[in-house]
Amino acid sequence: MVYPKSLEKLINFYKKLPGIGEKNAERLALATLNFKDEEIDSFSEALQEVKSKIRKCKICGHLAEDELCDICKDENRDHNLICVIEDYKSVFSFEKVGNYKGVYHVLNGLISPADNIGPDNINLASLIKRVENLKKPELILALKSTIEGETTTLYIKKIFENKKVLISRLSYGIPMGAEIDYLDIITLDKALEDRKKISE
Amino acid sequence: MVYPKSLEKLINFYKKLPGIGEKNAERLALATLNFKDEEIDSFSEALQEVKSKIRKCKICGHLAEDELCDICKDENRDHNLICVIEDYKSVFSFEKVGNYKGVYHVLNGLISPADNIGPDNINLASLIKRVENLKKPELILALKSTIEGETTTLYIKKIFENKKVLISRLSYGIPMGAEIDYLDIITLDKALEDRKKISE
Repeated sequence: MVYPKSLEKLINFYKKLPGIGEKNAERLALATLNFKDEEIDSFSEALQEVKSKIRKCKICGHLAEDELCDICKDENRDHNLICVIEDYKSVFSFEKVGNYKGVYHVLNGLISPADNIGPDNINLASLIKRVENLKKPELILALKSTIEGETTTLYIKKIFENKKVLISRLSYGIPMGAEIDYLDIITLDKALEDRKKISE
Repeated sequence: MVYPKSLEKLINFYKKLPGIGEKNAERLALATLNFKDEEIDSFSEALQEVKSKIRKCKICGHLAEDELCDICKDENRDHNLICVIEDYKSVFSFEKVGNYKGVYHVLNGLISPADNIGPDNINLASLIKRVENLKKPELILALKSTIEGETTTLYIKKIFENKKVLISRLSYGIPMGAEIDYLDIITLDKALEDRKKISE
């Protein structure tokens, strides 16, 4: 009982957040004490709003505040080009890069027989339907390079075989700025395999 | 506009917390999305409660949920022994150590002529009154070893001169486990000055 009860309660909530340990949660809770009343009000309002307003886009499964997400609503984007990703966090990563002008499809998981997650358990059926309605569909599979990611990539590749869908995956290789001699051997092996010709 | 508006708002609040940068705030906000409805409700309730319930103890200035803090209310503690500290965070630190059985006095600042903070601007008057009402008062000055801390320590020492108040300050020295050759020279100088006789 070091802390007053209400402070203890707030500390326990901060501790539920990822990467926030005991010590850090205490620091955050004590800092919260110095917030102005209006700030506290808006903070708890923001918490409530995020829960009540955010839902899934009907087309791509990304986070949205309406039926469709801002990206699916955007007429300036190429709706024939679909980047297939594991979860909505990847959307934010790609959007920050800012170079991608297509749309997304959020699988909300990866095929993982070990965890009893099959093709029916992820958001795949709607991708097939989506692609069927496009004139010149192109898919970019942007899944991680784990067994689950590669299994899912192969599965999607197979679904669209002989269906005139252009499919690519992200390149594997050396992260920018990384020291070659610190790289794990699998990455290095992939970088060798995916090597790019630069002579004319 | 990478994030939906309500999510952006929550990210901005997390960013106001100490040590939480852009990237981290995003991670916390996305994690918040996975909280259950009840959790979100209790979280925002906890935020409100901390603001409405927490006030200052009438005796010592520490955080309290009633007129007096739990420590000042505790009859098992030695109310003649007062540990004088800069802010309530120190109370939590001492309480975690768990060996201290006296009470506290929170100054809520330190004397700092450079910042125009004089003895009247910190919680000193109530300390003087408090000590006057005790039969065998003892003060432990636990202020940091900066110019402001030492100025305040000296000032308090002077106030209670010739008033039969036993006064001590925390020892300066080498932090436990620290390498001697990595210590700053001021700490080393203090450790030399405050050296403790161990021969009989």
